[in-house]
Amino acid sequence: METGRLEAFADGVFAIAATLLILDVSVRAPGAGLGQAVLHNWPEYAAYIVSFVTIGIMWINHHTCMRLIHAADRTFLVINLLLLMCIAFVPFPTNLIAAHLHDSGLRAAALTYGVNLTITALFFNLFWFYAARGRRLIAAGADPKLISGISRSYIPGAPMYGAATLVALLSATASVALYALIAFFFLLESSIFGGTPVADGA
Amino acid sequence: METGRLEAFADGVFAIAATLLILDVSVRAPGAGLGQAVLHNWPEYAAYIVSFVTIGIMWINHHTCMRLIHAADRTFLVINLLLLMCIAFVPFPTNLIAAHLHDSGLRAAALTYGVNLTITALFFNLFWFYAARGRRLIAAGADPKLISGISRSYIPGAPMYGAATLVALLSATASVALYALIAFFFLLESSIFGGTPVADGA
Amino acid sequence: METGRLEAFADGVFAIAATLLILDVSVRAPGAGLGQAVLHNWPEYAAYIVSFVTIGIMWINHHTCMRLIHAADRTFLVINLLLLMCIAFVPFPTNLIAAHLHDSGLRAAALTYGVNLTITALFFNLFWFYAARGRRLIAAGADPKLISGISRSYIPGAPMYGAATLVALLSATASVALYALIAFFFLLESSIFGGTPVADGA
Amino acid sequence: METGRLEAFADGVFAIAATLLILDVSVRAPGAGLGQAVLHNWPEYAAYIVSFVTIGIMWINHHTCMRLIHAADRTFLVINLLLLMCIAFVPFPTNLIAAHLHDSGLRAAALTYGVNLTITALFFNLFWFYAARGRRLIAAGADPKLISGISRSYIPGAPMYGAATLVALLSATASVALYALIAFFFLLESSIFGGTPVADGA
Repeated sequence: METGRLEAFADGVFAIAATLLILDVSVRAPGAGLGQAVLHNWPEYAAYIVSFVTIGIMWINHHTCMRLIHAADRTFLVINLLLLMCIAFVPFPTNLIAAHLHDSGLRAAALTYGVNLTITALFFNLFWFYAARGRRLIAAGADPKLISGISRSYIPGAPMYGAATLVALLSATASVALYALIAFFFLLESSIFGGTPVADGA
Repeated sequence: METGRLEAFADGVFAIAATLLILDVSVRAPGAGLGQAVLHNWPEYAAYIVSFVTIGIMWINHHTCMRLIHAADRTFLVINLLLLMCIAFVPFPTNLIAAHLHDSGLRAAALTYGVNLTITALFFNLFWFYAARGRRLIAAGADPKLISGISRSYIPGAPMYGAATLVALLSATASVALYALIAFFFLLESSIFGGTPVADGA
Repeated sequence: METGRLEAFADGVFAIAATLLILDVSVRAPGAGLGQAVLHNWPEYAAYIVSFVTIGIMWINHHTCMRLIHAADRTFLVINLLLLMCIAFVPFPTNLIAAHLHDSGLRAAALTYGVNLTITALFFNLFWFYAARGRRLIAAGADPKLISGISRSYIPGAPMYGAATLVALLSATASVALYALIAFFFLLESSIFGGTPVADGA
Repeated sequence: METGRLEAFADGVFAIAATLLILDVSVRAPGAGLGQAVLHNWPEYAAYIVSFVTIGIMWINHHTCMRLIHAADRTFLVINLLLLMCIAFVPFPTNLIAAHLHDSGLRAAALTYGVNLTITALFFNLFWFYAARGRRLIAAGADPKLISGISRSYIPGAPMYGAATLVALLSATASVALYALIAFFFLLESSIFGGTPVADGA
């Protein structure tokens, strides 16, 4: 099944990219100071949570798109591949932010993270609009309101991440706070306005 | 299929989190002392086994729940995501316990592990009760006795891990022993009272 | 589907355990000496190949079993979990052998590898015979000759690995050579006596 | 389903091998110099992109083959395993090239990468021609033009990588540039001449 394997490969990359984030959480301290060191290490946990949620939200969105997309051509496979390449890159700038939250490297780390996420959001738009344009790859019976709803909700992603990236030029801390806010905004938006249950097999 | 991809993503995270545990098992020693060093390294093997079994039991439980859940809404996807975020975190405190089993850092390590597992158990409750409440996401024909059986069996998880965490304040060693006991209790309980076989496709 | 998720989780662990082996292949050398260092590093490539093939053969065997097994109970899920725990452990002794192929640590490394593989083979027997005993979990229409053929072919695994492990007490090098031979014996046996094609959906 | 699990295992290895590439991207620098260090680290990003795309293109090709292949025998499982073993090896020479792009080790790194990719391309040919020869494992209704189209398009892979490998003897830089060119040639070829959409379930 054409889209079945696309989804299996995508699920694999999403799951691995999210789970690999834990490799960057570590504390090395002598026994006597371990408690202190574990508490002091909070930037790594915060970075883990924000990036896990960010990747997870993208997985939910990918999933939402694929429920309406019932075919794939090779161009779409390539776009999907480039999107996954951006997502699998997220652990790198996440690690930079965690490592430099308390020093002057935070600006460079925040810019790297923001550029990564902005490009990812652009590829996500390309992914969706390539499929949705003229209903190229959309299932025959799909509800037009669902399609235009997704289209509307995906447009702000890239500008939001782009703006948060530019904020890093003024204040790295504000920029990092914005990345966290964007992640939790999408999380809340998903879980509160989550719509009606969708039956298995729909 | 709505729950199909949720399960694929979850299976990926469970499998990766469990398999990544091996990255924290390593022995570096000169050739002449290797045999001794491999034996002396038993805390890392024990930690590997306990955490692999713990994650595996959670996978079995997730699987048991999903056999009755035949729909998902976005809120449920988000709860599932947060549950997986807790499970993918387990390698970190596992590593702390293995590294500090013989020194005064064990208390901090045991507390970290216990807090991680208690929060995970709470999210597991949220995951199940969100779906089961008023049969919100439960398959139409599901047996009410199965549903209430799961509900009953999931309630003790969080208090058990919470209590084992508090024990760490008195004795870190006792707390770690309790984590291992809980894992093997669930393992035995599953394998001995495993119920009747369930046909493929049921 | 009961066995569907068991297979998905197992496929994940097999794939990750095999792919993680590459993390133990690395060469750090100054530019001028890199060519020499890459060649000199052959034990790591050999260990990678032997363990990848060993894990891969086990995946093929798991797959062969599951084609006949159409149901699972919780005991079987637990046995499967313990089997996967052993397989996910393989990267650790693989790394020991690669690191100590040229020094006196090889005996300890070979014993560790052999104990790991022998226990894995025992769990594989448990996995198969639990399902096959009295056709407990076997599909209704499964050919009895196929079942007894698998039973016959799985009995030698544990004694073979056990014997190769004991050989390490006499000669570590001979033991390591035997592990490689066993892997390639199963590989050739599979690919030459591969039987007739099995239709999709069978 | 015979080919279903082959694809699940393959998807896992492809996804993990691609996603693990990020572990070799890292920057350690004091805060003040981080911006400079992140920019100076471009060879690691370039290596990440080229290898992610290379593995991704192979996944697309594997996928294209498997849409026509509807059965598997054990020989085919073994060939598939050896192909995956080569693909999971790609992170190692990728890392060598990134680490030595600016020093005299680039020749050895480029040769290692080229040998890896050439052998991979040979196994890919074996994979396809074993299945296609006399339509051994091909679905009954598969279009002969599609089959011969794939056969034609897979022949140049190994010679192209072999030639790029030999170029490393003259100029390591030219060889590395060729690897990148081959990857982007296949990417463009896929996305521009991507053919018509293929319906879900086809």
